[in-house]
Amino acid sequence: MDVLVPFAPREPKTRLAGLLDLDERTTLAHELLYDVLDVLSAIGYEPTVLATDPLECDASVVVDDRSLTDAVNAHLDAPTAVVMADLGLVTTDALERLFDTDGDVVIAPGLGGGTNALVVRHEGFRVDYHGASIRDHRHHAADVGATVEEIDSFRLALDIDEPDDLVEVLLHSDGRAAAWLESAGFTLDTRRGRVTLSR
Amino acid sequence: MDVLVPFAPREPKTRLAGLLDLDERTTLAHELLYDVLDVLSAIGYEPTVLATDPLECDASVVVDDRSLTDAVNAHLDAPTAVVMADLGLVTTDALERLFDTDGDVVIAPGLGGGTNALVVRHEGFRVDYHGASIRDHRHHAADVGATVEEIDSFRLALDIDEPDDLVEVLLHSDGRAAAWLESAGFTLDTRRGRVTLSR
Repeated sequence: MDVLVPFAPREPKTRLAGLLDLDERTTLAHELLYDVLDVLSAIGYEPTVLATDPLECDASVVVDDRSLTDAVNAHLDAPTAVVMADLGLVTTDALERLFDTDGDVVIAPGLGGGTNALVVRHEGFRVDYHGASIRDHRHHAADVGATVEEIDSFRLALDIDEPDDLVEVLLHSDGRAAAWLESAGFTLDTRRGRVTLSR
Repeated sequence: MDVLVPFAPREPKTRLAGLLDLDERTTLAHELLYDVLDVLSAIGYEPTVLATDPLECDASVVVDDRSLTDAVNAHLDAPTAVVMADLGLVTTDALERLFDTDGDVVIAPGLGGGTNALVVRHEGFRVDYHGASIRDHRHHAADVGATVEEIDSFRLALDIDEPDDLVEVLLHSDGRAAAWLESAGFTLDTRRGRVTLSR
């Protein structure tokens, strides 16, 4: 099965701009990508990075600077999996559970209505990442007569967009992004009853 | 196995005070509790609600107005499961996966470092819900020689504290809390690319 990992490194992670400058956000985005590629490689897949710009990494790279939806659909040749590049808690177990689940379309929902990873085994299905894509994907699958299964995974539900998401990486990951955050001076502060980020 | 569902209905869900008045937050807290009790009942458990105040509901109620940690530890007679009362996405599949996992201590981590559900099968283990309880529970288990397993579940990771959490309930649940939110006029708005709440 082909595995696409879309990656858009221009002005990445703007919602972290209060914590990290552009160079740091760019580094973090790459470390997150490498974590996803490492996990895919560990379970025997050879992913293709679908990038808006040329990129050096341990995977094939296809450059396509169209929107996420258009670029993915242009390269969606079922069976294909699409795994977001910023799943900071991703594990081999979580992705194997996704890939091993039967269904024409298998979705790992993301927080906020996103579709963080999916497997497409139906020729008629197309992605649409705008808005509440989980709802749109359920409807699109029904429209083309494709069965849908959903995976219940916290590790696939969390993509890294907001400062609070970095707390989760420090709590639950020992990957490259977590190591980079620690090297950049981030620690967890639990003195106020809730877990917050300190630097 | 005993199942405890701690419930503290005084001034509930204060982080939703910008959206819901006290009566509404109290109603929502109860609907969330009933959803958790319904799911436990559907898979054959007879939970005990460990409540800070007397309460009418379809389950045994034990009143204990101490802190969450103290009250749970006072009633922790292994094997016992502890399931939070505000898991708005809870399903039978998610709880069965938790209960069916071997381990002296089996934890379903919550967003922000919480421990949203756990099974305790080791006599020496005690809970501590303050701060990043997931980390403390890992350490406490190691201290008493108990094995720890973690469950990767989005549906158990989400407890309902913040306005964004209500988005997840409307996207992924058809339980009583979701029905109440709809009856209270909440809908999802996807016009701006992100999913937000409207009323």
